[in-house]
Amino acid sequence: MSGGGRRPRRPGRRPGTADTRGEILAAARRVFAEKGFDKATIRGIAREAGVDPALLHHYFDNKEGMFVAAMELPADPSTVVPMLLAGPREEIGERIVRFILTMTADPAARERVLGVMRTAMVNEQAVGMIREFFGTAILGRVAEALGVPPLRAEAAFAQMFGVVMIRYILGMEPMASADIEELVALLAPVVQRYLDG
Amino acid sequence: MSGGGRRPRRPGRRPGTADTRGEILAAARRVFAEKGFDKATIRGIAREAGVDPALLHHYFDNKEGMFVAAMELPADPSTVVPMLLAGPREEIGERIVRFILTMTADPAARERVLGVMRTAMVNEQAVGMIREFFGTAILGRVAEALGVPPLRAEAAFAQMFGVVMIRYILGMEPMASADIEELVALLAPVVQRYLDG
Repeated sequence: MSGGGRRPRRPGRRPGTADTRGEILAAARRVFAEKGFDKATIRGIAREAGVDPALLHHYFDNKEGMFVAAMELPADPSTVVPMLLAGPREEIGERIVRFILTMTADPAARERVLGVMRTAMVNEQAVGMIREFFGTAILGRVAEALGVPPLRAEAAFAQMFGVVMIRYILGMEPMASADIEELVALLAPVVQRYLDG
Repeated sequence: MSGGGRRPRRPGRRPGTADTRGEILAAARRVFAEKGFDKATIRGIAREAGVDPALLHHYFDNKEGMFVAAMELPADPSTVVPMLLAGPREEIGERIVRFILTMTADPAARERVLGVMRTAMVNEQAVGMIREFFGTAILGRVAEALGVPPLRAEAAFAQMFGVVMIRYILGMEPMASADIEELVALLAPVVQRYLDG
């Protein structure tokens, strides 16, 4: 499984332990922060971690999966986005809005989403990787699959980013306590409209 | 102008200097952070600053003006919101979107807006006063004047908050470089739709 490290390994350190996974993720965070999401490579992260790239493929499906794990995101866009895009095109706004509101209704998942939002707001070194990840793994995928201009996908993203912010960070009423289905009814037509292109 | 302090004044300290104004604003920030915007009073801020309330009225029109100055906001909602509400009702979305995008196109004004947005995102002590100020001075005023449910005003606010975030903090393309009028054409119908009630 390991194939041996490219650098001399410390004695007693073995591939495949929880510690190795943690070290890979720490290396991934450093590489993503330095290079951004788009320019970071599995090979470069393996080099930073001092392990064989095959080991990374053992733990993670791909670069996106590694970013999701490194940032502790509650969902992997490479599985969630295709799932949301499947189904009737005229209900895509509804599926997206309901997914975001349901996911963020769970306190543990929400804290991890808010953590990334806060990081993007205040950490200039991290903002590049977050921008590229959102752009490539979420918005680019949605825009391409639906054939809508990227600006429209961004407008829909802006709507939902703002809703999560007002509902959970500002805690502004009545949005903070509104029922998910009431918000779906209010917001889904707008997201749908943007994604109708 | 001063009317004399309620507490013994330090010798040599005179009302009406730049220093006095700065001390009032520092006191205002403490009181707003502790009490929130709604429960803070001119009288309480004067007490915290150790000056007569009449002096605060000399410097600031009202509590909103004091909050605007204390947070260094680039515009005072008590004048801007009525201005945006005046004019044809069917163009209110356009006026609001164009105002926000034009104001944030100015780097100095933008930095102050982003500063408040960042503070709301990461500072738990300050989030209460920011929520109440946005709610009372902006959204409550808009919802009441137009007779729309507060939730709809919040959805419009969420849309524009997200746009400013994506355009200027995440710097996501194409939204970061999009022309103001292109964004007005995209976003104004959505804001209008929410505010049509």
